[in-house]
Formats: sequence, structure tokens, C-alpha cells
Amino acid sequence: MSPLAELAGRLDPSCVLAAPEEMAPYLGDWRGRRRGRALAVLRPRSVAEVSTILRWASATRTPIVPQGGNTGLSAGATPDASGRCAVLSLGRLNRIRSVDTEGDSVTAEAGCVLAQLQQEAAKANRLFPLSLGSEGSCQVGGIVATNAGGINVIRYGTVRDLVLGLEYVRADGAVIHGLKPLRKDNAGYALRDLLIGSEGTLAVITAASFRLFASPKASATALCGIPDPTAAIRLLAMLREVAGERISSFELMCDAEMGLTLDLLGGAALPFGGRYPWYVFIEIADSASDAAMEQVLTRALALAFDAGVLSDAVVAQSGAQAKALWHLRFAVSEANKRAGPSVSHDTSVATADVPRFIAAVQGAAAERFPTAQPLFVGHVGDGNIHVILLFGKGGFQDDAAFAALAASVNACIFEIVSQFGGSITAEHGVGRSLVGALRRATQPETLELMAGIKNAFDPLGILNPGAVLEPEEI
Amino acid sequence: MSPLAELAGRLDPSCVLAAPEEMAPYLGDWRGRRRGRALAVLRPRSVAEVSTILRWASATRTPIVPQGGNTGLSAGATPDASGRCAVLSLGRLNRIRSVDTEGDSVTAEAGCVLAQLQQEAAKANRLFPLSLGSEGSCQVGGIVATNAGGINVIRYGTVRDLVLGLEYVRADGAVIHGLKPLRKDNAGYALRDLLIGSEGTLAVITAASFRLFASPKASATALCGIPDPTAAIRLLAMLREVAGERISSFELMCDAEMGLTLDLLGGAALPFGGRYPWYVFIEIADSASDAAMEQVLTRALALAFDAGVLSDAVVAQSGAQAKALWHLRFAVSEANKRAGPSVSHDTSVATADVPRFIAAVQGAAAERFPTAQPLFVGHVGDGNIHVILLFGKGGFQDDAAFAALAASVNACIFEIVSQFGGSITAEHGVGRSLVGALRRATQPETLELMAGIKNAFDPLGILNPGAVLEPEEI
Repeated sequence: MSPLAELAGRLDPSCVLAAPEEMAPYLGDWRGRRRGRALAVLRPRSVAEVSTILRWASATRTPIVPQGGNTGLSAGATPDASGRCAVLSLGRLNRIRSVDTEGDSVTAEAGCVLAQLQQEAAKANRLFPLSLGSEGSCQVGGIVATNAGGINVIRYGTVRDLVLGLEYVRADGAVIHGLKPLRKDNAGYALRDLLIGSEGTLAVITAASFRLFASPKASATALCGIPDPTAAIRLLAMLREVAGERISSFELMCDAEMGLTLDLLGGAALPFGGRYPWYVFIEIADSASDAAMEQVLTRALALAFDAGVLSDAVVAQSGAQAKALWHLRFAVSEANKRAGPSVSHDTSVATADVPRFIAAVQGAAAERFPTAQPLFVGHVGDGNIHVILLFGKGGFQDDAAFAALAASVNACIFEIVSQFGGSITAEHGVGRSLVGALRRATQPETLELMAGIKNAFDPLGILNPGAVLEPEEI
Repeated sequence: MSPLAELAGRLDPSCVLAAPEEMAPYLGDWRGRRRGRALAVLRPRSVAEVSTILRWASATRTPIVPQGGNTGLSAGATPDASGRCAVLSLGRLNRIRSVDTEGDSVTAEAGCVLAQLQQEAAKANRLFPLSLGSEGSCQVGGIVATNAGGINVIRYGTVRDLVLGLEYVRADGAVIHGLKPLRKDNAGYALRDLLIGSEGTLAVITAASFRLFASPKASATALCGIPDPTAAIRLLAMLREVAGERISSFELMCDAEMGLTLDLLGGAALPFGGRYPWYVFIEIADSASDAAMEQVLTRALALAFDAGVLSDAVVAQSGAQAKALWHLRFAVSEANKRAGPSVSHDTSVATADVPRFIAAVQGAAAERFPTAQPLFVGHVGDGNIHVILLFGKGGFQDDAAFAALAASVNACIFEIVSQFGGSITAEHGVGRSLVGALRRATQPETLELMAGIKNAFDPLGILNPGAVLEPEEI
């Protein structure tokens, strides 16, 4: 009996997919850049079945690639080409286990979709603040394993700031019960925080408890046209003076990127007359229903206009208008995918350094990659700018030529990131795409510590091999 | 030449204290419960000197006990009785390296006192929100190594939520440069978060970058008399409806504890006529200077009074009055120390469970320790209640008799904590006081993972032996 047949004997038949057409959706990344092969796709329905699978994987030395909604941007959930790995899809563990309105927490299984979590919180008159482009598909296990960010980090932090407790299964199948929804717990090392952002290489997350927040009862949204990134930093400082901790989002986008999203959305025009070199999307919100958010935002924008920081601005007059503005921001990934080959980065630097960092990238791109269109979009209040060099359709002999070009673009951008003491991946994670880059960007002693931690959790190396720490495939 | 003499030859003479009278202040814990011996007290002035010391310690297998302001409540910085250890005091690394008002961050060395950090932030018109009783003495290295909490956690989180980057020295002397003041960084495992709360057992923290916040420009403080802990939970919910995320502190205290702090402060009367079974200290604040915080707080309290949740309340009419109210809260540790032998705990449970948890402790104490006065004080919004069983002065044959009593009190309280799925130490840490309790309260597989992590960082076991993970001294 083959090892897989032996596992199948211990699970419900619905848990094991091995036919090529059934496995296909699980074998490639969302961006369409990597495609692998797998022994099987395993779809457990319970924590006990996850444990059974991992015991089997340890006994048979079968590499396991955990996968959630498969919306990752660093290929952290894509198996390699060997066909030795099994994909472990957590999508069927999708129960909301509890919502606690007295303690303001929610406990959800790994396969719950982010939008479902947002809706459950809203039903309880609470806010689950994580919000990002893939929220209709990405899952709890994935957002925790990648420490996801998104557009509300400036106010509520990343997933790390939202998680209270975790339940996970070790490589040997032991279930670690760490789901206590405690606000404070200093009993031993922060294993929870180590699991967050470990991208499936240390253990398989099966459930998480998260903090909930008071629902915003009043909010206001604006789109602003500004002359340059320095104006964005000044505008943020002025907005802070007026709106303080009410700033929920503050997103920067260049005009070329705006052109692409407008194209994708069928040529919708901007809600003000002209076009500007840069744009900022702002949302402020307050949990007090009598808070006059629209007036507060209008006052801040008027001050910024008088100070010459702002070229133009429109404040949404309805929820529908606000939603339409955010569509422009959320369409970025889709628009860029459609625009053709590009090399994208997820960098962060200190917030104050953002304008100099963007200028440095523009200068280097113009000199070294003159055929590329550099695009900038991101969470400027977090210092997290997505840099995309768009090469447009066609123009490459073959995949190998594009891969070589991408490697030299990466080296160029990461060199600039390093000069600013920044991060090569602020929120997308290392996955399989940045393993070599992480090694080059990180102090050897730090890599040693990471390898030691990996060994403590997964001595056989069966969890997501090739992601985060191991060498890139050749 | 002795190993110590050899080290002394590599350091400035001011860095090595070996005379008993010079070492004395470093050899006991603040509570006066443990006293150890040491080979020497080492007081480096620079990161390079810390590295030299750790290289020497690794080569000579000398155990190192890192120490900051020595205000810890779990004896995590107190050497054992063997005299083999060297205490590593970080107090001379006390430079604020930078304050960045554009990026809202501050970088400070391990020996900076918390109050100094608060003042530097205030000078820059920013808030560093960590606030706790020992803020005039405790140091940056200590607050990070113990993931300190305090009275503003309900709004700003613990130290974990405030740290952006860390610089630390490994057991072998390698300096890890992780000070980047980045808001987001997903490049590899969260070593920063692992160091936070590791209590000197994984590496020696030499500097930290922290987030700064908008200064509160308007605030209001109240002391409330309430009938029972359930009223505190209801009052918190009602306050959230009115004040939302403006709640900066929400602290519970029983009347017996209030009596002790009033005694300590020379019999100062409470600002309202009578006494009540329980009290809540509230502070709300807003970064907008026109925010009418006093009205907001008064409105919330009036609603609570009408709902029968509140017996009495006084809102401070000046900064001085607010300060005087907070004195009552901050005097707790000192007052309890003065009141005589007590056994104290730093437990957390889910917020909604706090009233049932307190009732369970009261019941168990009355039955099993009828001579003890149970005291309760803490951060009720975080579910973090300090439970103190006060036995008063005298009445014990000897230290051994008290130690045996303390052990049975601990076992009793931790059993109740376990029934509620709570934590045996929400903020004080494990130190040397709770090593056995941690082992009993924790899943064996979790302890295995912690031991593996310890081994990855400190394979020779020279960093703070006897703290967190190792067996208690017999």
C-alpha cells in the first residue's frame, strides 16, 4: 500500500484529492508566476484530521505545503515541481467558534474567510479592522501565517496586533492549545508571536482568537490630489493635528497607477476635474455617533489646501461614494496583473524617509530600466510602499529573459531598501519568492537564530520546505 | 590570572564591582524576598563592552544575570546563592539615541529610565504611553525583557505593542542589529517578539525603538465607588458606548486595598464622603484639544448612576486632583510591602470572567486561608487582576513556615486560574518565582518548544539560568 493510500484509509474520502483536474486550483499562485506539482491535496475537516495528516507526514517524511485562500503574493503556499509534497488546504475548517461581546473577541478556524469574520463582528456591533484587497477570499490561517497588513494598519496594526491566542498543530501532530482569549499573558516565550508570520514553516495554524473593536459610528472618506510624496507626509502630519487617532487609512498612489485602475474599472472618471501627479486616500472614523467626521476632515483638508500641501480634494457624500473611492484603491493588484509583466516589491522604510526612498527608486529606474514604468502605491503612514516596475506586454524573448531582468530589478530595489535600513517585505512575506533576497538582506547571525527556531519546531523539515529559509529552487 | 581578572583587564575599572558593599544593591529583589551572591557586578558603558562581557562569559561558562532598574516582581534579575553568576547591570547604557517626530518613534538604550522616556516624548509633543508604579526606576531593557504592562494597556497595549525594533547581544557576543524603526516588517521570523518577554534568558537587550503617539490634549479622570466587580464590567461597557477608544485606563480596587494605600499616604481621605466595597479609577483622553472629555466622562457616569451600576463618583477638577487620585493607585505595591507578609499573584482571565474569578478566589480563601485578607487590584479591562493574600505581620514561626504556606496559596490560586483558562502571570513574568508554576500550568509540548528556542539562542545555558524555564532552586 502506498503511503498516500495508507493515509486515505484513515480519513474521509472527501479529504484526499489526487486527480490532476481536482488538484489544479491548488497548485499555482494567484499571480500566475509559479506552478508546482503535488502528491495530493489534503482537505481535513477537523483539527483531529490535521493532526492525523501531520503524524502521517512525519512518519513518511512527506513535505506539507499549508494553504489557505491561496491569495498570497510571495508563493508561500505553492508546492515545488518535484511532486513529492502534499498541499494541506485548511478551507474546510471554517467555523466561527465564538463571538464574545463582553470581552470583545472572536475565535475563528483557519479556513474562515476574512470577509466572513468582518461580517460576524459587524453583526455583534463590533469592528474586525483588518481590510485588504483579497478579503473576499483570503482565510484566517493565511492572514495569521503571513501577518497580513492592509489599509487600516495605521490605526489598528497588523494581524500581530489583533491576535490574542492561537491553536496550532506541530509537525509531529501534537495539537498546541493556545487559544485563550487573554489580553495579557507573560507566561513563557511568545510562541504565538513566533507563529504569526512564520508562513507555514513552523506549525499548521488551525484557529485564532482575535480582538474586536468598537464599531466606527461616524466616518468620512476623501480622495486628494497632491503634487508629490513629501506633500503626503506633510498632509498626514496636519491631519494628525486635527483628527489624531481617528485616522483609519492613509494611502498613497501615483498617477500612472491610478490610470491603470481607472482602465480596469471601465474608464470611470475621478470625482474631481483634473488629474494630479499623486493621490492620497483618507478615511477617518470615530466610535461616537455624534462625532462630526465630515467636518473634521473638511477642516483638515482646508488647512492643508491653504498651506499649499493639497491641490484638490473630494470628500465622499455617501457610503456609496466612499465605497467607489475605495474601489480605485482595491483594484490595484488586479489592474497590475492585467497590465502585463511587472516586477513588484513590498518595501518599508521609516515613514519620514518615504519621499527620499521614492525619489531614489525613480532615479535608479530611469537610469537602469528606462523601458519600465515605475508605479508606487501603498500605506504611506506605515512607511510601506509597494514599488512596481511595469514592463508592459510583450517585449521578452522568453520566460528566462524576463526572470533575469526581474532578478536585476530586485537587486537594484533591495540595494536602495538596504541604504534606507528598510525591509524587503513589509507585509507580503518571504514565501518562495524572496528566500534568496532575505538571505542577502539579513545578518548571518540572525539567519542562524531563525534556522535554530525552525529546527526546534520542525526537526524533520517537513513543513513548507523551500519557503522563508531554505535555498531558492534552481 | 582568574577569569574575572582577565575580564577586568579588557574593561574600564569602573565596569567591574567585586567588593561586597558595592555589590549589595544588585543582589536582592525589590520585594526583599530573595537575596543571592555574585562573582561580580558588571556595569558596561557601551554595546561593545556588553559584547566583550558575553564573549568572556561564553568562553569561561560564567552565568550572566542581566539587570535593569531591579524593580521586577518575579525575581528574574536576582542571582542565585552559588556566587558563580555575574550580574550584568545595563544602567550605564542610558542614552536616548533619537527622537523622530515625523515617524513618531524614539530609540533608547537599555539603561534609560521609563520616566526619562516619557519626558523625552512629552518634550517632542508626543506620548510614550507606558505607565506603571515603578516608572521612576524601571529601565528600557527591563520593560522590554518582561513585556511590561501597567495602567494604559487597555488603550495602547503592552510593551510588545510599542516596540518597533531591538538591538541585542547574543550569548556568544554577536550584536544583532534590529533597531530599524519600521512600522511593518515581515522579513523572516519575529525574533523581536520572541525577545520581548524573554526575561534575559535568550539575549541581552541593549536598545529599543518604540512607537510614539499623539499627545492627549484633553483628558478627564474619575474615581468611582461601585458595589461589586460585575458593576465594573457593566460600567466599562457603558463607558465604551460613550467614550469608545478614548478610554486610557480602567482600574479596579477593593476597599481593603484602598484602606492600605490610604494608610501609607498618611490617612488622606477619599474625595467623596463614604467608603464603598469596590472602586474604579477611570481616565479618558483625546488628542483633539477641543474634545470635551470632562463632559463625556460626566455623561457616561450619569448614565451608569441611573442604571444603578455606580454608587458614587468624583471627576477630578484639575491636573493636581487627577494626580492625587492616581497616587492612590500607584501606592499599592509600596502599601502592600509595608502591610507585612503576603502572597501575591498576577493573574489574567477573559475580561467577562473577572467577577466569577474574584468570587471563586474569595470563596477558596475564606475556606482554606481564613486568617488571610484577600486583596484585589488591577487592570480589569485587560482581565488582569492582581490577587494578594495578606497575612499581616508576625504569626509565622520562621521563613520555612511562610514558604510552605505561600506554596499552598499559590497552588490554590493557580488551580482556579486553570479552571478559567487564564494565565498565571499576565504582566510580571515568570522570573525565578514561577518556574515550577509555569511548568505545571503549561502543556508539555509547549515547554518542549520553549526549551528548543532557548537552546537555539543560548546553547551553553549561560543567560539568566534558573529563570523562566529551568527548575526552581531547592
